[in-house]
Amino acid sequence: DQQHRKQQQRWQTECRLDRLNALQPSRRVQSEAGVSEYWDLESDNQLQCAGVSAVRHTIQNRGLLLPFFSNAPVIFYVIQGMGFHGAVIPGCPETFEESGFQQSQRSQEQHQKVREIFEGDIVAAPAGVAQWVYNNGDSPLVLVSFTDVGNQANQLDLNTRRFHIGGNPQKDQRSEQEMRQQSQSLSRRRRSESASERRNPNGNIFSGFDVGLLAESFKIDNELASRLQNQNDRRERIVRVREDLHIVSPGRIQEEERRHEYRRGSYDEEEYRRRSYGGEYKMTNGLEETFCTLRMRHNIDRPSQADIFNPRGGRVTTVNNFNLPILRFLRLTAERGVLYKNAMMAPHFNLNSHSVFYVTRGSGRCQIVDDFGRNVFDGEVQEGQLLVVPQNYAVVKQAGNRGFEWIAIKTNDNAMRNPLAGRISAIRAMPEDVLSNAFSISREQARNLKNNREEVTVFSTQSSQQGRKY
Amino acid sequence: DQQHRKQQQRWQTECRLDRLNALQPSRRVQSEAGVSEYWDLESDNQLQCAGVSAVRHTIQNRGLLLPFFSNAPVIFYVIQGMGFHGAVIPGCPETFEESGFQQSQRSQEQHQKVREIFEGDIVAAPAGVAQWVYNNGDSPLVLVSFTDVGNQANQLDLNTRRFHIGGNPQKDQRSEQEMRQQSQSLSRRRRSESASERRNPNGNIFSGFDVGLLAESFKIDNELASRLQNQNDRRERIVRVREDLHIVSPGRIQEEERRHEYRRGSYDEEEYRRRSYGGEYKMTNGLEETFCTLRMRHNIDRPSQADIFNPRGGRVTTVNNFNLPILRFLRLTAERGVLYKNAMMAPHFNLNSHSVFYVTRGSGRCQIVDDFGRNVFDGEVQEGQLLVVPQNYAVVKQAGNRGFEWIAIKTNDNAMRNPLAGRISAIRAMPEDVLSNAFSISREQARNLKNNREEVTVFSTQSSQQGRKY
Amino acid sequence: DQQHRKQQQRWQTECRLDRLNALQPSRRVQSEAGVSEYWDLESDNQLQCAGVSAVRHTIQNRGLLLPFFSNAPVIFYVIQGMGFHGAVIPGCPETFEESGFQQSQRSQEQHQKVREIFEGDIVAAPAGVAQWVYNNGDSPLVLVSFTDVGNQANQLDLNTRRFHIGGNPQKDQRSEQEMRQQSQSLSRRRRSESASERRNPNGNIFSGFDVGLLAESFKIDNELASRLQNQNDRRERIVRVREDLHIVSPGRIQEEERRHEYRRGSYDEEEYRRRSYGGEYKMTNGLEETFCTLRMRHNIDRPSQADIFNPRGGRVTTVNNFNLPILRFLRLTAERGVLYKNAMMAPHFNLNSHSVFYVTRGSGRCQIVDDFGRNVFDGEVQEGQLLVVPQNYAVVKQAGNRGFEWIAIKTNDNAMRNPLAGRISAIRAMPEDVLSNAFSISREQARNLKNNREEVTVFSTQSSQQGRKY
Repeated sequence: DQQHRKQQQRWQTECRLDRLNALQPSRRVQSEAGVSEYWDLESDNQLQCAGVSAVRHTIQNRGLLLPFFSNAPVIFYVIQGMGFHGAVIPGCPETFEESGFQQSQRSQEQHQKVREIFEGDIVAAPAGVAQWVYNNGDSPLVLVSFTDVGNQANQLDLNTRRFHIGGNPQKDQRSEQEMRQQSQSLSRRRRSESASERRNPNGNIFSGFDVGLLAESFKIDNELASRLQNQNDRRERIVRVREDLHIVSPGRIQEEERRHEYRRGSYDEEEYRRRSYGGEYKMTNGLEETFCTLRMRHNIDRPSQADIFNPRGGRVTTVNNFNLPILRFLRLTAERGVLYKNAMMAPHFNLNSHSVFYVTRGSGRCQIVDDFGRNVFDGEVQEGQLLVVPQNYAVVKQAGNRGFEWIAIKTNDNAMRNPLAGRISAIRAMPEDVLSNAFSISREQARNLKNNREEVTVFSTQSSQQGRKY
Repeated sequence: DQQHRKQQQRWQTECRLDRLNALQPSRRVQSEAGVSEYWDLESDNQLQCAGVSAVRHTIQNRGLLLPFFSNAPVIFYVIQGMGFHGAVIPGCPETFEESGFQQSQRSQEQHQKVREIFEGDIVAAPAGVAQWVYNNGDSPLVLVSFTDVGNQANQLDLNTRRFHIGGNPQKDQRSEQEMRQQSQSLSRRRRSESASERRNPNGNIFSGFDVGLLAESFKIDNELASRLQNQNDRRERIVRVREDLHIVSPGRIQEEERRHEYRRGSYDEEEYRRRSYGGEYKMTNGLEETFCTLRMRHNIDRPSQADIFNPRGGRVTTVNNFNLPILRFLRLTAERGVLYKNAMMAPHFNLNSHSVFYVTRGSGRCQIVDDFGRNVFDGEVQEGQLLVVPQNYAVVKQAGNRGFEWIAIKTNDNAMRNPLAGRISAIRAMPEDVLSNAFSISREQARNLKNNREEVTVFSTQSSQQGRKY
Repeated sequence: DQQHRKQQQRWQTECRLDRLNALQPSRRVQSEAGVSEYWDLESDNQLQCAGVSAVRHTIQNRGLLLPFFSNAPVIFYVIQGMGFHGAVIPGCPETFEESGFQQSQRSQEQHQKVREIFEGDIVAAPAGVAQWVYNNGDSPLVLVSFTDVGNQANQLDLNTRRFHIGGNPQKDQRSEQEMRQQSQSLSRRRRSESASERRNPNGNIFSGFDVGLLAESFKIDNELASRLQNQNDRRERIVRVREDLHIVSPGRIQEEERRHEYRRGSYDEEEYRRRSYGGEYKMTNGLEETFCTLRMRHNIDRPSQADIFNPRGGRVTTVNNFNLPILRFLRLTAERGVLYKNAMMAPHFNLNSHSVFYVTRGSGRCQIVDDFGRNVFDGEVQEGQLLVVPQNYAVVKQAGNRGFEWIAIKTNDNAMRNPLAGRISAIRAMPEDVLSNAFSISREQARNLKNNREEVTVFSTQSSQQGRKY
């Protein structure tokens, strides 16, 4: 029945792709406490076809990625490190509060839920939801974040628009503006606009308001109101926290998790419910039943939760609306792939979505084929690169000698893969005689074609043992 | 669970808006018994970004706005006066009939439901549903009507297309055609079409049919069939009714309503069910369960139904799929705002929709800020003007000395507002330390920023008492 | 409640149609055992407006239309003949197997369900689902197939993209590529791409993969792998089967059907459930509950199932999500119309969809009117021609002397027709006085206009008796 409600609608894009490329970031911005590397939609027609942009944030210890929201849903994956993630959902209660509950609430710290994040987690947030990330660990926290600009939730235009609450990321915004202007001047489809007419970026969203109106809005004095505009701030998007960041948090989560690892997926929600409904909170609108209690985080890297596992090949884990329900709203699926040395992912196509994948470790050879049977990509994709696989295009992957690991997002909340080879595959599903006539081969050959490869989607190879090269 | 089905999809538009403007109508057409003033989509890139056009009809006493349907959903608001509204929903029964029930039905007047409309009502109708409005009051009936051209229900193109059943609004159509042609010649994106090739408008939808086929279709003589084409009619869209318009109507609704005002919202439906299921009517298709019984009208102006009310500031009333279920199909939300003298609406952004508002009374100062923190609007919006607030753009409003009242439509059936200040707000939801680091302020200052303004969304101001000017 | 989930979203197109035309195929490709005639989207702005392309396949006896999948949902109608249809749905079990069940399954033939198809059937398949068709009858099997390129399921671009599994339809692909290139060079909206840069089509989807990777994927030798690429195959899309095609099939379906014709609609499903759940099959994913068991075929031509039947006029049968649930996913409705000699289809408009119809027999006069009341089509549409009726445009049809039969697809899973004349019509739904004022006619005339034509949608005519010409 849930399937019956499944729907998808995307921004329409052009996918005239004669040649795909493994992509490096198009833009890099250094902040006070980290660096952000962007794959801008404007920079590449593959990304435009898929409607997905990406950014890799490297956040140093005690670095804080300042609060911002986007015009489109965001999924990020924690490549390395640990930290806290906060999201601001309008109308949801401030459920995290200091323990001295009986005292005046006015002076007590209260804020909406924060969640600890670890390597291997994905975090999914709807369009328009403000987010921040803090690195409380000892090593850099590295995230790769995908923004689904082509998502129906975006009613603006096919640009990644980030609205900053705090800070003053002028350098970042200026480089983004340049990227957009270049793209527009290249495109004949868009109206002429002299770049000089466009005014410069101005920082966070408070920068554009009158200081007096801000002071009135917050009932603060004009001096503090002017601080909201952060005019002389040069720290960019990732700032260094001056003292250690004080956040109310459930605490000891880590320790408990080590003992009850299996419960991790559901921890957040239970914690929330206990705090929320045990108290006196009155709902402010009908949203609490939905967004407020929806889990945003999911560990996609735990081998035990793989959907496909081949001890001689690797594993594939899919997170979609069934195991992370917020993805129903976001209309996205995440896929984690781990191929061992020289193993293969069956030739397949994505039935109902594009796929954009980022290589988190190792490298692999990929081939991609379009509707005219033309090879549009044949090459090695390295750690740190991004590749777009358009909907319905056929793709095959083979891991290199160091293995091949990726995180992919797919533009459908129940993305479907159709393998062409293996025990569950399109070829297996067809009658032998259809195959023998399609390929002008004998029935015996058709039978081999259907049945020889018994594995499902993740294949071991002869070369796995032999250390085959290409 | 209802939330799970919530979805939105819009026409993709361009929102390269360096500067917004408060808009006056772009076109005015005088009819026999009224005047129509249009905010054409083609006339303005803000309206194109939002995908919403508007028209204000001023209908004189005994004026009839002739039946028409649009390629997109319509919501109108009754600014002033009273009247009748009829809608034609295919497959629904003619449930309003003359009282002499036992007689030959053939000669009895029967028609689909009509509804009385009053100042403060909104009426919502799906795309393709023919509507007419009649002013049976003593003063002009003034409506402002929004057409959501960017709505998914419109499969044609991003023009407001009105199909007229009756009349012959040649002047109106010709001015509309000129507006479209100007827009096309300005736009480089569209194909060249010499204007001369486009034939002139021809009036109502019967004008394009052969008279013989019309006569055959209705089993009428050719002379009456040719009258359907109204060739020499110069009355335009709003005509003066020759004798008083005879409509079957439940009657005495007004009197009863004064006594049972609280029941008003549900009156129509009850009336319908009694008449419909009490009779012998056989359903013609599965639609009756849905559209036929859905309420189209809702009073959005009653103070007691406000969602946010501040006795020193004003009120905001939201009508969405929860209190007017037809809006689920239309994917629209309506908002009524009333700010008292000098009061403020909290700085906020619309999470998941555009907002287009029309000032029904007074005036207010508005500021709007884009993703780069640039002020794209800073000015006073007057009674009778329209302003577009794009999705995610931050906006603040402050009423002038005469107060500030508006009706807004938002392009989502559950539009969400995210206030930045006040008791329920993004700033309140974030930890103090995130704020103190984001704005480089002290913890004490962060606490003030979070907590000083205790009101929700509608704020009283110092100047409320002092009669502050700007 | 089902209605509440009803939604539609389409690719946005341009519908600046001053003149519509009855369309002949734009392209014809001869295969070894049949011929394919295409109505390419790229060839015509009416098809682009509707977002629907079409093809008519004439498959000779023992001809096999090779497996392919599209980037958009497909509905085809069997104009003539009989055959088998196979579809490959990823994750669904191979439920059709040889009877020797106890033996080694490895060597047994197993494949996914196939269905027999007959004249008068429609078959509906989602985007990305591979399909093949085999003519096992004695006469040619003729299909007209509609691809809903504007459907939300297509995330690529507004081209009909066919991915072939098997064969090597070079001639077909080359003519298609030329069509696309012409269309692009005509359109100013698209980026310049020198045609020379575009590489030639290369055949089926295996053609673009490395032979070694194919061999590894299927665990076959390189020679067989290279056969998958079919380099020297000149048979195109429809090939002649060398011996009779051996398919596992329920058998005797035809005979049983003649006795239990009324059960036919549900036969497939029952057969499937018995075979599927009676066995030991374990579900591989959550899909089985939905796509795997959904019926794809429906006979739309059986007179007894007509929705509208007038013994002196003809009949109209509608198949939508209510009687063929897979259409909910496909968001399409099919309509079968049969008008007797000189009978009429009431003037009407399609409320929420475009309509694209193909004339299967006879001919008829059609008139179509746009929003400005202009006649944009007035002509005779012949057997074998296609006509687009854009959303909301008013249309009237009258059969010629040999009658008029068509199959239409409509771009909504619950397409609604709004007749303007007849017992259920927009005119009937309006009060007499609204009509008398709209058309400046008397009340008596308005009453005749409303009530004279008592039939519903399908009208007999005077000329039926008189053999009227036009």
